[in-house]
Amino acid sequence: MNKEKLVQQILQKQSYLCVGLDTDPAKLPVPLQDDPNGVIKFNQAIIDATMDHCVAYKINTAFYEAMGKKGWEVMEQTLAYIPSSHFTIADAKRGDIGNTSAQYAKTFFEVLPFDAITVAPYMGEDSVRPFLEYEHKWTIVLGLTSNKGSADFQHLTLANSGEYLFERVMKTVASWGNPGNLMFVVGATQADSFKPIRTALPEHFFLVPGVGAQGGSLQDVSKMALNKEGGLLVNASRAIQYASSGDDFSVKAKAVASQYHQEMQQLILEKGL
Amino acid sequence: MNKEKLVQQILQKQSYLCVGLDTDPAKLPVPLQDDPNGVIKFNQAIIDATMDHCVAYKINTAFYEAMGKKGWEVMEQTLAYIPSSHFTIADAKRGDIGNTSAQYAKTFFEVLPFDAITVAPYMGEDSVRPFLEYEHKWTIVLGLTSNKGSADFQHLTLANSGEYLFERVMKTVASWGNPGNLMFVVGATQADSFKPIRTALPEHFFLVPGVGAQGGSLQDVSKMALNKEGGLLVNASRAIQYASSGDDFSVKAKAVASQYHQEMQQLILEKGL
Repeated sequence: MNKEKLVQQILQKQSYLCVGLDTDPAKLPVPLQDDPNGVIKFNQAIIDATMDHCVAYKINTAFYEAMGKKGWEVMEQTLAYIPSSHFTIADAKRGDIGNTSAQYAKTFFEVLPFDAITVAPYMGEDSVRPFLEYEHKWTIVLGLTSNKGSADFQHLTLANSGEYLFERVMKTVASWGNPGNLMFVVGATQADSFKPIRTALPEHFFLVPGVGAQGGSLQDVSKMALNKEGGLLVNASRAIQYASSGDDFSVKAKAVASQYHQEMQQLILEKGL
Repeated sequence: MNKEKLVQQILQKQSYLCVGLDTDPAKLPVPLQDDPNGVIKFNQAIIDATMDHCVAYKINTAFYEAMGKKGWEVMEQTLAYIPSSHFTIADAKRGDIGNTSAQYAKTFFEVLPFDAITVAPYMGEDSVRPFLEYEHKWTIVLGLTSNKGSADFQHLTLANSGEYLFERVMKTVASWGNPGNLMFVVGATQADSFKPIRTALPEHFFLVPGVGAQGGSLQDVSKMALNKEGGLLVNASRAIQYASSGDDFSVKAKAVASQYHQEMQQLILEKGL
């Protein structure tokens, strides 16, 4: 999906919600717990319940890999079930030397035809480049993550420039691509940093985890970083997927997604988009 | 496999060779190219040909993921075929927030019972901790990688301490584990840095890619970084796997592995181990 279509979806629907499908078989709602096809049925129900309220789905590959071979089948089925109107993200955090990153790009852009993949930046340009070479696909590089450990290295200060490592990473990576094929992960828990990051990168989309279970604020993030194209994909996973463990799980999931959607409509309105 | 057993294997065999199984179906030798089970047959032949000369095998997960579901089957079969005397590494470069890293640890320590996994450090402590919590398993964190892009971020200088980022990463990560559950990736192409790294971390094992196709020197690395337990696992992938594309591929693979082995025996002898 290209940027024009993504922006159109956001503005038409007045939503920049991404629903995370981090499906843990141990956390399936009661009615699906003993069903051998419980995971795909659950994902399909969550997609059906939320598709009117979101513009993107993010599949966290770790949860599927932990199911072994069967997990890859479920990942394929889940991806195939997502409507083509929605942007799809493989949250895979991959990255390796060039010839290996090329294999990961093939996996998540061809074998599994996602629109985007998350990529770790530590290994530098040749580890990111093979992903950027795909037309109409997106590379979403870790900038400033939502977790506590983001303080360990991402917040180190560099000599001479005085920049934080994450600032240098985002600025450098931005020079390898453009706002039409490159996004950054910026955690919602990093409210203090959102304003300078948006100033430094006015046109890039940010994939924002950390709202919901991790405690970030949709309001704060949106006020600081919405731009004229939206420019944000705010993800919620557990808060939607596990809104209820009973028969009403999809009704409750829809209710939570709808609430995010309403808040986003209001925030988009306030922004005058 | 615990450290005692790994060291015993190295000293008995007088080898610290790790054979990389980065099997690309497009590069299978001619006699296996049209065989639907070509990849597993190839891996088995490479393992048979090299097992007397190496102490470890490293499976690069990217190449298997690019085959889709079938790839996970081949990865399982390959891992099962490796003799229990050999140390097994999932070269997966994973790392995410805690609850997601726990899923990756489950995947590569339980579902696929590898001895070790490679992990990217950018997300900090809670992204690495779930791997370290497994007893008798190993976390191999990226320190200074072998590729050109290692200069982009790993060689940035930090304010105050004047350290390189990779030095801080290795020192900090070392404080989260111990030389019995933690190794570091240090590329053979980084000869200038090997001596200070070994001085800073005298007891840790280093997994060393970059010999062979990438141009690093086994001699240089070994002279600077062998310690009394060996302390190195030097990997060669393409140089061994693709030594020949003809009928004699396994004979040629054995010859290359044997040559590495002989050089290692000599280097171990010179070191007086």
